Amino acid sequence: MIELAFEKQGGLVPAIAQEAETGTVLMMAYMNRAAWEATLATGIATYWSRSRNELWVKGRTSGMVQKVREIRIDCDRDTVLLSVTQVGGAACHTGHKSCFHIRITDNKEVVDGSPVFDPKDVYGT
Amino acid sequence: MIELAFEKQGGLVPAIAQEAETGTVLMMAYMNRAAWEATLATGIATYWSRSRNELWVKGRTSGMVQKVREIRIDCDRDTVLLSVTQVGGAACHTGHKSCFHIRITDNKEVVDGSPVFDPKDVYGT
Repeated sequence: MIELAFEKQGGLVPAIAQEAETGTVLMMAYMNRAAWEATLATGIATYWSRSRNELWVKGRTSGMVQKVREIRIDCDRDTVLLSVTQVGGAACHTGHKSCFHIRITDNKEVVDGSPVFDPKDVYGT
Repeated sequence: MIELAFEKQGGLVPAIAQEAETGTVLMMAYMNRAAWEATLATGIATYWSRSRNELWVKGRTSGMVQKVREIRIDCDRDTVLLSVTQVGGAACHTGHKSCFHIRITDNKEVVDGSPVFDPKDVYGT
């Protein structure tokens, strides 16, 4: 098993998901050792939810999973970069393709683009 | 000033640097409030060094700074995505273009590509 520097990071390493087809950075989340091993074993991006305190197979409920195409780690072994195919075309719970849809310009916030899906349709709220 | 969720993160938010020209994810580091404000004010990527415990204008010594082309924040306001022009063409202290030059394949590590510079030439060690 490939070892990451979990210990020096309180058990969690950041994991960046980048869309394989476009290079768009979709999101950043965290992995503990179980999430890392599950991602390697299944080829489906699996994170650790800090808010729910549980293993998080992103898209397990909605079907909008991330199929892992390539896995990279950084020189310090404390950050993961996943190249993924995002099923459903959107990674953000707001329905936007990328969680990074807020652009800062002239000290103002601009939301880029429209949501790909309506969160009500997916999450029912 | 654009507010980020520093407090819930122990004062630091992760910041991803992506090369503007190619979409390559170069590195991930951390920003405290001072680093964030310096980045906004100067247009040069500024981080907080967790190992040296000081403000870190990346490339200040070597000249290999990151010129910020675009700044994005994520839906939770707790991660920053910088689109940058990497002066000198390499972000990693190893001389590699990207810190994410270690690819995981078949449960083995493969180093992609050759360093762009020799760290001895830049850091003298």
